[in-house]
Amino acid sequence: MHSFSRTTFLNLFVVCLAVGKATASSKICSWENNKDSSKGDCADGMESSKLKYAPPSISTSPIEVPAKILMGPGPSTPHPRVLQAGAAPLLGHMHPEFFRIMDDTQAWLRYGFQTSNTATLAVSGTGHAAMEMAVANTVEPGDQVIVGVNGIWGERMTDIAARFGAKVIPMETKPGTVFSYEDVKAALEKNPGTKIVFVVHGESSTGTLQPLAGLGKLCHEQGALLFVDTVCTLGGVPLNVDADELDIVYSGSQKCLGAPPGASPLTLSDKATAKLAARKTKVQSYYFDLNEVGPYWGVGGAARKYHHTGMVSNVYQLREALAMLAEEGLEAAWARHQQMADRLYEGLKQLGLELFVEDPAARLPTVTTIKVPKGVNWADVPAFLMKKYKLEIAGGLGPTAGQVWRVGIMGFNAQPRNIELLLVALKDALTHVGFLKDEKVV
Amino acid sequence: MHSFSRTTFLNLFVVCLAVGKATASSKICSWENNKDSSKGDCADGMESSKLKYAPPSISTSPIEVPAKILMGPGPSTPHPRVLQAGAAPLLGHMHPEFFRIMDDTQAWLRYGFQTSNTATLAVSGTGHAAMEMAVANTVEPGDQVIVGVNGIWGERMTDIAARFGAKVIPMETKPGTVFSYEDVKAALEKNPGTKIVFVVHGESSTGTLQPLAGLGKLCHEQGALLFVDTVCTLGGVPLNVDADELDIVYSGSQKCLGAPPGASPLTLSDKATAKLAARKTKVQSYYFDLNEVGPYWGVGGAARKYHHTGMVSNVYQLREALAMLAEEGLEAAWARHQQMADRLYEGLKQLGLELFVEDPAARLPTVTTIKVPKGVNWADVPAFLMKKYKLEIAGGLGPTAGQVWRVGIMGFNAQPRNIELLLVALKDALTHVGFLKDEKVV
Repeated sequence: MHSFSRTTFLNLFVVCLAVGKATASSKICSWENNKDSSKGDCADGMESSKLKYAPPSISTSPIEVPAKILMGPGPSTPHPRVLQAGAAPLLGHMHPEFFRIMDDTQAWLRYGFQTSNTATLAVSGTGHAAMEMAVANTVEPGDQVIVGVNGIWGERMTDIAARFGAKVIPMETKPGTVFSYEDVKAALEKNPGTKIVFVVHGESSTGTLQPLAGLGKLCHEQGALLFVDTVCTLGGVPLNVDADELDIVYSGSQKCLGAPPGASPLTLSDKATAKLAARKTKVQSYYFDLNEVGPYWGVGGAARKYHHTGMVSNVYQLREALAMLAEEGLEAAWARHQQMADRLYEGLKQLGLELFVEDPAARLPTVTTIKVPKGVNWADVPAFLMKKYKLEIAGGLGPTAGQVWRVGIMGFNAQPRNIELLLVALKDALTHVGFLKDEKVV
Repeated sequence: MHSFSRTTFLNLFVVCLAVGKATASSKICSWENNKDSSKGDCADGMESSKLKYAPPSISTSPIEVPAKILMGPGPSTPHPRVLQAGAAPLLGHMHPEFFRIMDDTQAWLRYGFQTSNTATLAVSGTGHAAMEMAVANTVEPGDQVIVGVNGIWGERMTDIAARFGAKVIPMETKPGTVFSYEDVKAALEKNPGTKIVFVVHGESSTGTLQPLAGLGKLCHEQGALLFVDTVCTLGGVPLNVDADELDIVYSGSQKCLGAPPGASPLTLSDKATAKLAARKTKVQSYYFDLNEVGPYWGVGGAARKYHHTGMVSNVYQLREALAMLAEEGLEAAWARHQQMADRLYEGLKQLGLELFVEDPAARLPTVTTIKVPKGVNWADVPAFLMKKYKLEIAGGLGPTAGQVWRVGIMGFNAQPRNIELLLVALKDALTHVGFLKDEKVV
């Protein structure tokens, strides 16, 4: 692959050079020449280095990466088509061809989110960047924000919102459970003047799926905005931003969409952008200021304007992942994730394992939390799976640390071959650690 | 390439499945099945869509990107080896193999920066993210910061520093010129109590190279830290962070290093991290808080700790670019960039063009600003070069808008074939727009 690309590239130059008579510089000092000379012949007068620090004694050989199957809570294994887009020729961040790719990416993000929000884009950073950008623009110092905490992501939000000046009111429920409509209603009534209510749609640390129906309307009746983390749900679980009146919604690329981390979906309703427009204070970030980034993405039909150098290659990969989601169809993708989860639950039961989330309706199909059986050292199972199968599952995080295994069924991994492989490998591992009787796994 | 990767991937599964007896789910609903069925057969009961929004009517064909030669102020054309790393199998952000890649990346960044700073890492975002992370950690509300403004990047810093609560004191000089040692000394003496002085090493909007010698020591004598933008210089222009006592230094991946944008170098001296440790206020960002990100990168020998999902593929590409820089040697790379710039200056003179930066010592070798001759519409030349040669050069930015062309000679593009191609293509363009006599370009 490498040689092919390189040859093509060199040919391009040869073709270009053929149109004119090139006058070579008297000193020919190309990258290749320099590289081939251990003495750095091209560095006139620099034969003896004056550098304070020599190059580190580590191998400069081309990168080698093992091919793992990533079935932890993310990143998930990307489809080869998605990965390959990361090696496509680089475009400038202001080139019309890249704007076209951005346009398509936004159109598909709107489809994935089921929204017509003009303020829909991919944040230049990982999921946390989208989370922070969402907060930076919509939370103004002094704003009262109710944060639903039933796992690590709610906890994280209490931290981030406070850094941006929010008066944070935690609303808690036991890890492994979700908030009811009544919980949210009570919290809003108890805390008049609340500007924003935050909940996590798919809490990957505990494996819960937060029902969203009615919450948007409820918040709006109380003059608040609804802010939702969909990092583990976009593209894998039914999500209807407009129909459910969600205002501030962010996600990640490396979960159900199956792209590498780096370009993270964000959408804001008109109510949310109106709150931004009405701010009395400047956004506490330049990088994340939607007033600055928005025009770069053409938000609101604005003329394209340079803000920062976009994540060109990451957007390529996100574009591929979204194109594949559109080809499949959103409802088909949702159904596929649910069916694979159902098959996983069935298989886990056959292995004698129990799910951490007791209420079936509260189970997140994309990240399943499995109770570590008594007498089993949790770390032994992921270690065995990685060693023998190069297959990743994870342990718990935050409130579930040491108590559960977490299995991701997301994107390209949400298909029968992955589930069946996982189940047979898990059986092997559980036998290895002595939880299952020592029967030959064939 | 696509088929090859995919086949390999499928084989991996076949091998894995062979070890156990897989029980297929009664409903087989794979991604491929879904994709091949326009009716979404796998979405039980969802044959008629209940979605509010249908998929947008845009082509979902695999991405197609023209192969351009990027000789504007950045991004620069990556070497194929660097690009290809973006398609390498994805690792988890907490996998030991990825930690090893991070370690190597940091070691080479220290070499590139010529520093032993433990706080050296790649920020998860583009150059602006590194700029903002540098500010977020080192500027505390109320800090007096002298910002050298001689182009767009100094202006940008006045904005960002103010958002993080700095009392900004602009120190100005005419675009196309740089600050002398005496300028900085006078600014410090006029503004006692200054905590930080910011200058731009390579000002890409004007094409100037800021001399750094002595500035670090000067700042330290006055109790201030020296903060330097090296986005356009790291790996292309002599830069010695420790020897020149620079405290806060950030860069980009997509300039002289020649990687796609997305993982951006940052290094902080012990003085800078001590300032962070002594903060009375929390960093106004979670994503950029070095107290949180540092352990993820093992800064200070800390045990690895999850902070956010690292930019795995971007770090691969940065790692490749840095490995190639180490292979070549830093001094050789610096010399190569200077020699290519010298050849460009010579060629431009032969074409009757003048440089925007009058003082030869103040010229940035990596981004050259060329005066647009009278009577020439600046936009016609880049348009001609792009159309005929798929070769990018840029117009001015900020104070140079409409006045100059900007040519980047960075990384993989800093070699004779690029310079000679550019000169012959520029001659063609200048003839086309009537600046040069209509002679046949052969």
